[in-house]
Amino acid sequence: MAEGFFLYLRMVAAEVEAALPRVLAFESGFAAHPDVAAVHEELATLTRRGGKRMRAAMLALGYQAAGGKRRDAVMPAMLALELLQTYFLIHDDWMDGDTDRRGGPTVHMALGQRFNDAGQGDRAAILAGDWANALAHATLLECDVPPAALLQAVKCFAEMHRDVVIGQTLDVLPPPVRRATAADIERVYALKTGAYTVAGPVVVGAALAGHTALSELAYALAPIGVAFQLRDDWLGAFGDPAKTGKPRGSDLREGKRTPLLCMLGDVDTALTERVAARAASPAELEAALRLLEGAPKAQLEQRILALVDEGVGRLQALSLEPAAVQILCDSAVWLGRREH
Amino acid sequence: MAEGFFLYLRMVAAEVEAALPRVLAFESGFAAHPDVAAVHEELATLTRRGGKRMRAAMLALGYQAAGGKRRDAVMPAMLALELLQTYFLIHDDWMDGDTDRRGGPTVHMALGQRFNDAGQGDRAAILAGDWANALAHATLLECDVPPAALLQAVKCFAEMHRDVVIGQTLDVLPPPVRRATAADIERVYALKTGAYTVAGPVVVGAALAGHTALSELAYALAPIGVAFQLRDDWLGAFGDPAKTGKPRGSDLREGKRTPLLCMLGDVDTALTERVAARAASPAELEAALRLLEGAPKAQLEQRILALVDEGVGRLQALSLEPAAVQILCDSAVWLGRREH
Repeated sequence: MAEGFFLYLRMVAAEVEAALPRVLAFESGFAAHPDVAAVHEELATLTRRGGKRMRAAMLALGYQAAGGKRRDAVMPAMLALELLQTYFLIHDDWMDGDTDRRGGPTVHMALGQRFNDAGQGDRAAILAGDWANALAHATLLECDVPPAALLQAVKCFAEMHRDVVIGQTLDVLPPPVRRATAADIERVYALKTGAYTVAGPVVVGAALAGHTALSELAYALAPIGVAFQLRDDWLGAFGDPAKTGKPRGSDLREGKRTPLLCMLGDVDTALTERVAARAASPAELEAALRLLEGAPKAQLEQRILALVDEGVGRLQALSLEPAAVQILCDSAVWLGRREH
Repeated sequence: MAEGFFLYLRMVAAEVEAALPRVLAFESGFAAHPDVAAVHEELATLTRRGGKRMRAAMLALGYQAAGGKRRDAVMPAMLALELLQTYFLIHDDWMDGDTDRRGGPTVHMALGQRFNDAGQGDRAAILAGDWANALAHATLLECDVPPAALLQAVKCFAEMHRDVVIGQTLDVLPPPVRRATAADIERVYALKTGAYTVAGPVVVGAALAGHTALSELAYALAPIGVAFQLRDDWLGAFGDPAKTGKPRGSDLREGKRTPLLCMLGDVDTALTERVAARAASPAELEAALRLLEGAPKAQLEQRILALVDEGVGRLQALSLEPAAVQILCDSAVWLGRREH
């Protein structure tokens, strides 16, 4: 069923790869300064190691669903999303102290090594992120669409930017686990990931095609974005390490506030508090995983499927190009079932 | 002579203060999370402690110089500049390890204290900066001008954003003092400060009025931006601590790459290397200041005046509204002579 989406994804990814070199060229007059060139090179490298280009594909689908016919005209917006993602990843990885990303070192690690100074690497990484962000906003403006449509897209892009920052703030400053409910966490997901993995890109694409019923579209897509993130949680707890590239139960180890952790809280409060405080022993983590394998796992799977169904139903009720809507629905099904 | 500019500055500042509360309102549905509200409150507080609102005034002058008649229509752009400045200051202060800003604690210090955890304060501060940046881009789009003019302004804003980030990167990763010349440093200034204290805001304002000869305008203003920054250097070395709020010779203490340091390099290379490496003793710093008080000080003053004259001459050659141009020229004279 997800075949149509995979073909589309592969096609868009090839177009993105072909277009990236131009926006990633270091064209400033400051190439003479090797350290500045190195900061730029790190943001370019991370952007090139981009993987599936799913956000770009979502944007293209939104554009076509709203009747857009010239995908090349909105390629700058697709690249802008990839650059925005680079910016978020660089800042997030520094905040989380992560060392690896997309099969290579994170930017703050790479720059710290280059300057032989971790602090200087951190500072340069924040600037690399800021630079990617500035580049994203500048690139978006190169879309070849009428001014009113472009302005609307810029507005949606700015809102998406803001929502992700608020979502990340909630992530970095987690509430006490005792007070968070699964519904609270889904609200954070709606901001942080939903806003910019699914609904955000699709809405920006539709805006570029001159679509005006944007809030209806965002409403239809919201459950799919949340399903995507819940599937991430599922993979973080039960996924096959060989496919996900993460150790089994990695979210638990990090004490992440996920709906799974909330469900665990209903079963064993004391254990959940220790996990959330990153104070659980390996044996306790194993016990937590065993508890999650029962009812919480089944409950989470059900919730994901229900969200996908809800999103697909809402999408099909809208007046959009049927072929693009079909691929969007395929993508929703895949997002809810993916194994990595 | 600078009277006209001061009156204008005071008027614009009052308008900005009146308009700020609306964009600084915390309107997210997440007020229930006190830590997130605290991050927002810090960026709002720093924006409110904004001082002169010079960038907003420059934008308004650019708008009026290009024939714009409704200053209220471009108020969102003036606020966007203040928010962009908040973002830069938060990230810069963290990078420089500064503890005070605008008469209060820097954002990373305030948040570190609040969370009783310096690392968490640092992370939250980067997010506060990112949040201010997102808010700046969103606010700019609220200007009430025709779509084509607004798009052009957004483009100029994005370029200004990128130039400042590159300039800051050059600042954080300074070249070896031996290889930098005063001209190199002026080029950095043209990016970092010129781009966004003078030329950037004026050009965004002119774009909002539908002005199209934007590169001529930026060219005319470039020397004034550099003069502004050189005056900053002058104040950092010779300014009255009671007026500048900084200790005498503060730039030297920090080993900052300024044209003054380059001039010192021509007089005493060994001493300059020690200052640049922050390895100079108090006696050596005093010796350096004494050397600078001679020819370098006079040379710097001459350079500032020459740049102001050049900018004023170029401005007066353009076809713009004479009254606004006069105030812009007044501002240039003030920027080159200010004592704080």
